[in-house]
Amino acid sequence: MKLIKIIEILAILVGAFSGFIEARSKKMDVVGVFTVAFITAFGGGTLRDILLDKRPLFWVAHQEYAILIFVLALIAAPLIRTLRKIVSERLIVVADALGLGLFSIAGVSEALAAGMPIFIASMMGVITGIFGGVLRDIVCNEIPMVLRDGKPYAICAFAGCWAYLLMQKSGVPPDFSLWFSALLITALRLATWAKGVRLE
Amino acid sequence: MKLIKIIEILAILVGAFSGFIEARSKKMDVVGVFTVAFITAFGGGTLRDILLDKRPLFWVAHQEYAILIFVLALIAAPLIRTLRKIVSERLIVVADALGLGLFSIAGVSEALAAGMPIFIASMMGVITGIFGGVLRDIVCNEIPMVLRDGKPYAICAFAGCWAYLLMQKSGVPPDFSLWFSALLITALRLATWAKGVRLE
Amino acid sequence: MKLIKIIEILAILVGAFSGFIEARSKKMDVVGVFTVAFITAFGGGTLRDILLDKRPLFWVAHQEYAILIFVLALIAAPLIRTLRKIVSERLIVVADALGLGLFSIAGVSEALAAGMPIFIASMMGVITGIFGGVLRDIVCNEIPMVLRDGKPYAICAFAGCWAYLLMQKSGVPPDFSLWFSALLITALRLATWAKGVRLE
Repeated sequence: MKLIKIIEILAILVGAFSGFIEARSKKMDVVGVFTVAFITAFGGGTLRDILLDKRPLFWVAHQEYAILIFVLALIAAPLIRTLRKIVSERLIVVADALGLGLFSIAGVSEALAAGMPIFIASMMGVITGIFGGVLRDIVCNEIPMVLRDGKPYAICAFAGCWAYLLMQKSGVPPDFSLWFSALLITALRLATWAKGVRLE
Repeated sequence: MKLIKIIEILAILVGAFSGFIEARSKKMDVVGVFTVAFITAFGGGTLRDILLDKRPLFWVAHQEYAILIFVLALIAAPLIRTLRKIVSERLIVVADALGLGLFSIAGVSEALAAGMPIFIASMMGVITGIFGGVLRDIVCNEIPMVLRDGKPYAICAFAGCWAYLLMQKSGVPPDFSLWFSALLITALRLATWAKGVRLE
Repeated sequence: MKLIKIIEILAILVGAFSGFIEARSKKMDVVGVFTVAFITAFGGGTLRDILLDKRPLFWVAHQEYAILIFVLALIAAPLIRTLRKIVSERLIVVADALGLGLFSIAGVSEALAAGMPIFIASMMGVITGIFGGVLRDIVCNEIPMVLRDGKPYAICAFAGCWAYLLMQKSGVPPDFSLWFSALLITALRLATWAKGVRLE
């Protein structure tokens, strides 16, 4: 599945940048920046693969992504210092919403391929989508934002995963299902964020 | 083993409710409530199964429990708001003590069945009993209560696990060993709590 | 490999003592002291083995080390109270630097033996070296020191792991490579610490 590959690469880069920003805001050094970026980018997928007992892990089979994040982390400090003037909170939210959609659908499709029952597959999608950020916040000693800020986030991922599952069961072409449901998650996240929708 | 099954179901519900209460006290939204409840209920057993390399995980093989917690989480907010007037700290402690006993003995019996050496089996019992709560507190950004409050908790689980191991080696009927040692843990926890016994 | 065994035992004891000290400084009880010491001593290696899907875990196959830490934890309170007058920050740093070198090289050699690609093997070495401490700090509700204090630590481990990998590829005798690169890490850590070298 070539499309899933593209989806995962995009999601990894988005995750890594979100990790760079969070680690720098905690005044971490270059080791912290790399570690937090790595955990944010690969944490969700790694947890999913450990739960599914799937090996090799994505970043073990493709060490080029680990090396890429390593190199980016080395230049993260000057890079982010320069970008700080340009990058607004809005841009971070958009990038993060894109990563959420891409990661979640990659996760649910992996779980389905591994023969998981349907509700568990939808959970694995959400885990892949949000646990990079959850682990990032735990390492940064924060209550994970996704669990407390009352904004629809995991719920958007959950809705999109079910859209994907239903499209798969209805015989919709896989490539279309993948992109449609990933972008649905991104759109749901951005729309609810812009409107200020709040969960209880 | 039908009895172990009943034990695990009871322990899962008790764990989930403890998670609901903790997540609400941290003002988490419905996603946080579900996630924390799920981690509290399944975290100890999942960590044990990962350490033992046992698959499928309990909640993967029985998606009905995940769905149950999901549904309960959706009504957790009004449910807990109503219950807040009725449920005292005392009731939480009792429910938690019951969960501790049930989880720990399920864990030690699983580990023994997986061929673990005896001391490791007792540790796996304690891990199953306490790590749901440890992970809950880490996610809620607290030092795990079980590690710092100086009240006998893990030690009660440890004592009960050794009671179970000794009874198994002495040819006591398994069903009796299971219930006796699970209830022994619950009784030890409640007695030491009521008496205010403190560890150094 | 007899030498790797000696290295791991030494590293475990150093890790456990670092856990004892941190847990006591957080006023944890005996359960917390044992748990934090155990996680600090075995956390890095356990994470590496889970990522590599290697079983049995070191502490499962050698329950004597778990029992040893258990016994030491029981006497940790009086022991540390007495030692507090003798043990300086300097001694903790030296012991920790020794553990860092020993753990990291054990980790990289394990990963290489498991057929990991070379960059991933170097990461597994660093993970083995630093993640006991990372998990210790997470459990103790701190931002992991290694990620934020701006002092070369993981980077020393990384440099030593590459020294080991290069020596292995160049046909240097394994025993010499192991000790040389482990002590190189210790020396790098102590030298940069003494000089007050800082990363960005």
